[in-house]
This record gives sequence, C-alpha cells and structure tokens, in this order.
Amino acid sequence: MGQTAYRTHHATEVSEALVGQKVTLAGWVDRRRDHGGVAFIDLRDSTGLVQVVIYDEEVARPLRSEYVVQLTGEVRERPEGNENEHLTTGKVEVVVEGLKVLAKADALPFQVSTALENESENKLPGEDVRLKYRYLDLRRPAMQYNLKLRSDMTKAARHALEEMDFTEVETPTFIKSTPEGARDFVVPARLVPGSWYALPQSPQLLKQLLMVGGVERYYQLARCYRDEDFRADRQPEFTQLDMEMAYVDQEDVMAMAEKVIAAIWKTQGHEVRLPLPRISWQEAMDKYGSDKPDLRFGNPIVELTDYFKDTPFRVFQAPYVGAVRFEGGADTPRRQFDAWQEWARQRGAKGLAYVVFGQDGELKGPVAKNLSEQERAGLKEAVGAQNGDAVFFAAGGRESSQLLLGAARVEIADRAGLLKPDEFAFTWVVDFPLFKRTDDPDDDDVAVGHSKWTSMHHPFTMPSADWIDSFDQDPEHAMSDSYDIVCNGEEMGGGSVRIHRDDIQDRVLNVLGIDKDEAQEKFGFLLEAFKYGAPPHAGIAFGWDRAVSILAGASSIRDVIAFPKAGGGRDPLTGAPAPISDAQRAETGVDYDPDEDE
Amino acid sequence: MGQTAYRTHHATEVSEALVGQKVTLAGWVDRRRDHGGVAFIDLRDSTGLVQVVIYDEEVARPLRSEYVVQLTGEVRERPEGNENEHLTTGKVEVVVEGLKVLAKADALPFQVSTALENESENKLPGEDVRLKYRYLDLRRPAMQYNLKLRSDMTKAARHALEEMDFTEVETPTFIKSTPEGARDFVVPARLVPGSWYALPQSPQLLKQLLMVGGVERYYQLARCYRDEDFRADRQPEFTQLDMEMAYVDQEDVMAMAEKVIAAIWKTQGHEVRLPLPRISWQEAMDKYGSDKPDLRFGNPIVELTDYFKDTPFRVFQAPYVGAVRFEGGADTPRRQFDAWQEWARQRGAKGLAYVVFGQDGELKGPVAKNLSEQERAGLKEAVGAQNGDAVFFAAGGRESSQLLLGAARVEIADRAGLLKPDEFAFTWVVDFPLFKRTDDPDDDDVAVGHSKWTSMHHPFTMPSADWIDSFDQDPEHAMSDSYDIVCNGEEMGGGSVRIHRDDIQDRVLNVLGIDKDEAQEKFGFLLEAFKYGAPPHAGIAFGWDRAVSILAGASSIRDVIAFPKAGGGRDPLTGAPAPISDAQRAETGVDYDPDEDE
Repeated sequence: MGQTAYRTHHATEVSEALVGQKVTLAGWVDRRRDHGGVAFIDLRDSTGLVQVVIYDEEVARPLRSEYVVQLTGEVRERPEGNENEHLTTGKVEVVVEGLKVLAKADALPFQVSTALENESENKLPGEDVRLKYRYLDLRRPAMQYNLKLRSDMTKAARHALEEMDFTEVETPTFIKSTPEGARDFVVPARLVPGSWYALPQSPQLLKQLLMVGGVERYYQLARCYRDEDFRADRQPEFTQLDMEMAYVDQEDVMAMAEKVIAAIWKTQGHEVRLPLPRISWQEAMDKYGSDKPDLRFGNPIVELTDYFKDTPFRVFQAPYVGAVRFEGGADTPRRQFDAWQEWARQRGAKGLAYVVFGQDGELKGPVAKNLSEQERAGLKEAVGAQNGDAVFFAAGGRESSQLLLGAARVEIADRAGLLKPDEFAFTWVVDFPLFKRTDDPDDDDVAVGHSKWTSMHHPFTMPSADWIDSFDQDPEHAMSDSYDIVCNGEEMGGGSVRIHRDDIQDRVLNVLGIDKDEAQEKFGFLLEAFKYGAPPHAGIAFGWDRAVSILAGASSIRDVIAFPKAGGGRDPLTGAPAPISDAQRAETGVDYDPDEDE
Repeated sequence: MGQTAYRTHHATEVSEALVGQKVTLAGWVDRRRDHGGVAFIDLRDSTGLVQVVIYDEEVARPLRSEYVVQLTGEVRERPEGNENEHLTTGKVEVVVEGLKVLAKADALPFQVSTALENESENKLPGEDVRLKYRYLDLRRPAMQYNLKLRSDMTKAARHALEEMDFTEVETPTFIKSTPEGARDFVVPARLVPGSWYALPQSPQLLKQLLMVGGVERYYQLARCYRDEDFRADRQPEFTQLDMEMAYVDQEDVMAMAEKVIAAIWKTQGHEVRLPLPRISWQEAMDKYGSDKPDLRFGNPIVELTDYFKDTPFRVFQAPYVGAVRFEGGADTPRRQFDAWQEWARQRGAKGLAYVVFGQDGELKGPVAKNLSEQERAGLKEAVGAQNGDAVFFAAGGRESSQLLLGAARVEIADRAGLLKPDEFAFTWVVDFPLFKRTDDPDDDDVAVGHSKWTSMHHPFTMPSADWIDSFDQDPEHAMSDSYDIVCNGEEMGGGSVRIHRDDIQDRVLNVLGIDKDEAQEKFGFLLEAFKYGAPPHAGIAFGWDRAVSILAGASSIRDVIAFPKAGGGRDPLTGAPAPISDAQRAETGVDYDPDEDE
C-alpha cells in the first residue's frame, strides 16, 4: 500500500527480507505481554499483526490496548523457539527505538483484539452494543474481512459489467412515488411547500426511461428505500446491483447475469459452473415448497394426493397431500416431535402430521393408525423412505401445504448439518405467473392496484409470448417472462422482460384495477415515453446486501453493512432518527396550509 | 458488444469486411430519404449510424422518425460516388430483406436526429421541455457522449483507487443531522413517530468513523443532499467522489488525488502533468481575486495601495486599491464601458473605475483627471499595461475589491475568447484560514455555531501544526491543513486533515460557539469515538457532477446528469415533488402528538 507520512511499511510487510533494516510502523496496540521488564506488543494495522519489542520501561509503561502508536525500530529474527507459526510475521519482530503515542484509548466497552478471533464469538456483547460502538466492532478482523469482501465483490461485478460494455448511470433518489409493493419513504420539499419527494424503492422506471433514451446497457449500484416493518433481516435502505439492457430477451439477461455471478464468486476462489441450472416456479413449489429452493441438498417433497385419494383418514381427504422425508428421524424423542408441532403452529399450520418407520420396518406414529391397510403397506415406497426414517405430512390447500413442507425440509437439513455456508447451490427460478391473488393472507406485500389481482413481480413485467393476447382474459394462468436467481435458499436477485408498449401496459394496469386517471397520475410519464419508440428491454437486479452475506457466510445482512440500523430503524450509534427543531420543521413546509397563503 | 436476441451486429460494426454477408440490426429510424421509390434510412443505435436501403415500398411506407425496427439484410458496398466520408460506415449499406417494426413513434416534440448535431443547438427547445422529455433528449449524441464520458471517468477513478488499495464502503443515507453549512433534507421515520432521519450533506462523519474503525483507505461515490435555494447551477442531490485515508498527512492525500485526476483526464486523451501547481489561498485572493482562480490565462491583479498612498483622488484613499489590465481595451466604445458599470453594480459594487491608454500613449477615461501628475506618469508601468489597453480599478475593502477585480479579470478573458473548454489548468489552493467571520454578507453558507467565527471548511478540519496550541487565542489568523483542487476557475474538490483528538475538537467547537451540551447532542458519537484510539486521518472529495461537466466542457452540470431537477427542485418529467395522500401523511407520523399517545 506504499509509504505514507506515518509509516514505511505495513505490519505484514515486515518479513525476514527486512532483517537488519529500520522500519517505521503505525497502528493499534492489539495485545501486550510483559516478561522480565520487556514489553511485547502485537501491533495491528489493516493488514494484520507484527510483534514489536520494547526494552525501555518508560516508553512501554503507558501503552494500553487500542492506543494508536507510531514507532521506529530494527527488524530482527525472533530468538529460536519464539516463532509464532500462526502469524505471517511470526519469524520476525521489531525492536523499538522510538515510539510516539498518536492517540490514547480509554478502557474499551468490549475487546476487539484479534486474539479473540480464535475463540468463540460468544464473548461479543449484544448487537445493540456492537452497533453503538460500531467503529470498534469494525476493527475486529471478522468485520474487516466482510467489508473487504464486499468491496472486492463490487469491484468484480463492475469489471465484469465493464467488459460487457455497460454504462454506469446514476439515477435520482428524489423521485415521484412509484407502485412497487412497499411503502415509500418521503421527503418534504421546502421550495414547493406541501409537496414531497419519494425515495425510490428501486430505479425501475428510471432505468426503463434510460432504455427509451438510448442507453443500451445500464448498470448502477443503487441505494433503494422501503418503509417496511423491519421484520427479520431487512433494512430501511439497502443496495441493489441494478442492470438493464435494450434489444435483448430473457436468455440474454440470464447469460449476462451468470457471468457477473461467476466473476463475483471467483474473487473468493469459487468456480461457478455455467450455465446455472433452472427450475420452473411450479416445480420449485411442488418439489421444494418454496420459490427460492435450497438445492444444497435433495430430499424433495413427495405429492401423495393421488396416493390418498380413497383414504379413510379425514385429514388427508384434502385437495392436496404431500410429505417430506426426515432421514433417520425415527429415533427422535417424543418431546422433540412435540416441538415440531409447535414449530408448525408458529408458521400458521395446525400441526405437522408424521409417521415413523422403525428399524424393523414397523409403521408407528399418530397418523399410522388412521390409514388403510393398503396405504400403510405402500407408504415407505411411495415416499421413498427407509427404515429408521420419519415422514412429515401436510394436507389442505396446495400452496400452504407445500410451503409448510418446504420449511420442514430446510429445518430437517439444518439440524442434520447440511446447510454448509461455504457450499453454493445456484438456480434460476423461471416461468412465473404474471399475477397473484391480493387476498393471499401469507403475502404482506402491498397490492399495487385495486382488483383481486396484483403483480407477481411488478406491473412492468412482460407477459410471456403465449399470453400477450390473452393474459387479461385469464389472469389466473397467465405467465410472465421473469426470472429469479436463488442461492442456498435465498433470493439473490430477480428480473424480467419489461413491457415496452403502451397498449400492453394499459391492459396490465387494467387487470390490476388501476384506471386511466390513476395510471396517468402515477406514471403517466412512462406511458407517454412508450409513445416515442421504446425498444424491447429487460433487466435484473441483485440484492447486494444479501449477495454479500451469502458469499461471506454471514448470518445477517447487518454483518456486511458498515453502519446498519437496528430494529425499528434505530441507529444506536448516532441516535437517529431524532426529533427536529420547530424552526427546522417550519422550513420543511409540512405544515403548509394553502388557505393561509397570501 | 456481442449478439443478442435482436441483432447480430451493432450499426457501426457493419463494415467492408462484412460485404456479401447477412446481418440483423436493430435500432431507431434516425432519418429517411426517398429517391425513385427507394427508401434510404439511417439506422441509429448506441454505437452510431448505418445506412439501410429498402426497395419494397410496402415495407418502407409506414416507417417514420424514431420508429424502432429490427431488420435483416445483406451488406454491400455503396455505389461509387455515394460514399459518406463523415460516417464510419460510410462506404457500405445494408439492403433490407426483412423488417419488423418493434415499436412505433408518434410525432416528436422535438427532433433528436444525429443530423442536428452538425447544426446549431439553437434548434433545441427550452430546458423545461428537454427535461420533460428527457428520454428523448438523452437520445441526442451530445447527451449520449456526456453519459458515456461520466461512466468512463467513474471507471477510471475507481481503477486508480483500486490500484492504491482503497476499499469501497457504502455509508448510510439515513443519518442524524450534522452541521455542514447547509440545510438538511429530512425524512420522517414512521416507526418512531415524530422522529426524522436527515439525509447526508456528505459522508464526512461516517468516513471519519471508518478511519476510527480501522478501514485505512476508504472511497465511495456518494450521493449527498443539500436543501439550498438552487441558485445558479446547484441540484438538491449531487454526487461526490469521497476519499479518506488513515496514517497520512496532507501531502499523501494530495499525491493520491493527483493520480486519480490524471487517470480521469487520460480517458479523454489529456496528459495531466504532475505534480500539480499550488497557490496559497492568500496569493489566490491577491493575484486572482478568487479562491478558485482560473489559470488558463495570466493577467493577475496588481495591487496599487502603496502606489496611491498619497493620491489626491478620494475614491482611491482606501484600505486597498487594485487594478486589472484589459488588454486592447482602449478601443472599447463608451456605451460598452457603461455596460461594465452595470455589470459591476450587479455584483454589489458601486461601479468600475477605469482608465484608457490611447495608441499614442495618452491617458484618458473618467479616473485619469483625478490623479496626480506623478501617478499618471507611472501608471502604465505600475500596472504592466501597454498602449491600447484599458485598466479597471477597484478600491475599498481588500476582499470585496479583490473579488470584483477577479470577476472582471475572468470576464475580460471570456470576451477575449481565452476560456477554452478543452484546455485544463489545475491548481491546488492551500494554506486556508481555519475560520471565517459569520458576518460576511457575501457568504450565504449557514454558520455552524453561534459565535462570530464559523469554519472555513467544516468543524472537523485540523489546525495547521503551527496553530495547534494557539488557534483559539487568535481565530482570525489561525491556519488549517486544508486544500482545494481547482480547475479552470471551478472548485472541483476539497479536503483537509481531520481532527482526531477530542481535546482539539472540543476547542474548535468552543471557538464556533457550540457548547458541550449541544456538541454532545449533535455529534457526541464522534467525540466519543475519539476516546478509543483514533488514528490521524485526512481526505478529500471531488464534486463529481462538476468534475464531469469540466471535462465534458458542458455549460451546466444538468447536462452531465441523466435526470436532473429544474429550478426550485422540480422534475418536469415525473412531476415530483407532489402532494401525498392523507393516508400516506398519517403513516409518516409527522402529525404525531405525544400527548395524544395512549
């Protein structure tokens, strides 16, 4: 990284090649040990550690953890037997001749020393404390690694896109509200009192306008905003690697996106085999009970609707019956099966029916006795189970049953240790429906229109060629040209061919229950743009925080964001959000009353 | 750029090497000419133009300007005498065998054809119309060039920073208000009713926290927000190339920034000679009457305070008298000199005193008769003027007089055609004062504190080494370690060494009239961070819109922003900002009344 005013070398540049030479280093006091009046200090900088030795007690006395020091000294080999194999600089040390304290450090609220990295992370305080002192948390090598990984991934993605002649374009974040399935954050516009900007949920319409504007290949690492309830692992602002191309179809975009993914994963030494596998949305739901199946392991759901079509068991007399195998589950203690019931109830199910195949082949469990003789006899084969397995069942509505079995499938794999963070199973999910019902209670997206149909992706998604003429006559079955990229059961991104004709866009909005006036008011500018020669176009966006967390093996996207928000959108570090002064409020114009004007 | 579903080649890839081969192209109908029943069409895509020939009248009839078409045909050499030297594809044409209209176009509100580019831009409509139909405006080659240039500059800057081991880190845009000299835009936080996020005026404090957090070299192309009155050439949101380094001094940052600048300018074939020249702030003010001097030309201001110290002319009996030479200005008609008076009055001056040196050496003009014999005799030499020149004077306060003469100097050069947009004169401006007076009427920045002193740059700027101990005793003369990079009279960027010790920060805040409680409330987190071992650090930021507009030779930053706002922050394209619904307003929580709670 080169010399600066404060150093000649970085810590890990100190090597045997420098023995006998003077070096000047700067960094933090990572750890200090004293032996016989001599102080041994691990000096830490962004590259790692080197040991420095201080013989002068006067110099050494004040030094404490996380002091910032600059020192000059001679490099020497460590005395025999004192080498540290775990350190790249473990064969050398620096004998300090001069030392200057650049900044002192109070006692830390928690330790950040690299020594901790080899121990359990359990010593870390709770996340609110980590976020309050984020600048200390970031000093930990695990966080340094995450930030560096993110930067390297971004670089790799950009280089891949540059290779493919993409133009990086910055789109505005002060826009007009657009309908994309979540609440907008809004910003009062002081100069137009009573008016507000919306912050973009994505640059969707803007990138489409760029296509109309003749930018044939656009990308941007775009900041996006969604005012949601911060369930689970969401942030109010997030980053999207946003890409759009003109004069392309679905295959072109998928091939492009695969190259970007391969380039990103390569930064960590992973060779991603292209082309990536594909699965239809319907098959993903049928086999994995998920539109983002985790394919690191098999164990697909088995549909048994036909198998149980004449069953005497009332519960299985349902529109859909399915099962998932719990390999080796026969040994599960009864109270753990009870816990599975609780697990299912938390997902909104009534419970989780199961049977057990004893090691001797005997069928047991609460469901077993309700089945017919014939059903019992053929069940093991029908499910593909072995002696010693258990099998979970779900019966009822097709989709809700599949979702439950899909979740059980992942939970089983997790308990069996099959969800390895350093294995990466990508798949495209394709052939999505164009619409979904607005009355789905499991779906907490905001419906875009006012009919019983809303968009599966967004209202700008092109119907597939077979459905162009008829999608509005049969919205339930209409398909779209859209695609999601899934890795390890996480949706890493998604995209679609876009509508580029105003007649098709009008008809889609009509299905969504958005009338002409409302359409005109909300995105009349897009419909207008389509009147002046809009080329066919398609695109994709990667959820960048998610992509980084997958490759980093992080348990939360918060671990790959430099300064994330805690629950409720709070920032324990700065105290944001916070009240504003009356003067500031007056200036925003939010209390503007047009009747009082003039 | 490779094949896609819609084309085998781009327009400008059609060359003599392809004669006799079939190609499939896609793009816009740029221009159409008909000769004897044959249609000649310029097909335009993102690479440029190629001529296609349609013999079938049925096929050709419907085609109009800006229709989007896909066509297949054979490449052939143009008949002798029909070549077009101005086109890279001017020796060939494509004989159309099949053509499909991908999208129609209504009659355009204004023409975007490349043919216009060779004519005057006067044919363009007003800017509000251009912004309303920005997607059409962007199709013009001049705008395509600007977007591509911006992308290329960004790429070059990133690559240079990657070479120097910078880590790209994204910082949040939902932050707590920080004091940086302008109004914040604010965002109501629904989940904490009555509370607001501020949008960052820059990532200043966040990047300093990254330094405290052990990221030694940070960069980001950061979106920033300032709620100003959109004077002149400002946008409510703008982009900053933001860089910060730990364990460095001013020289390290300047050397790094110079490498980035050289890499950027090289994208357009300009070799920037390094190191860049430097000028102190005081010298810039004295010689050029500006803290961002245009050094594409000479003609410095000459101070004449001493020269006129015994003058009989009352106007020149002032704390400061200066002059600037108006080369060849003696021929200026009287009414133009009157216009100069008006020009000066618009800048808040009383007028612009002048003399004229006739071709015969005779001294004329309104001021001449007021001077003493001796003053008249030596004036030409004292100013460095020639026969045939005019000389403008300003007398009064030093700074206001210098600013007037500096503006006159640029205006003279402009009228003489010396402000060439493709010549680039960089300079560092260094040795800035640490503080400036808050009562300066010419300065419309918002004072950060409550005393008569405010920060020249911002409150986190380090006093220079000589002033560390005494800056608070003599704020008027205290200097800082800060630096601006100026190109062609525009401030392209600026930076400083930052304060990394809480004791120094406390003292600076004290000079600014910010007491402990207020400091604690506004940026207590930064002061707290400085307690845990903050390394010395320094940085710089380039105003990216400005940098691009300089290199592009654009007259406004709006020409290098894809979707800029018009005056007052309005977006003629989408209609933003706009009122929000009552329901949306209720959700924002801005009307939250804590007394009504529970």
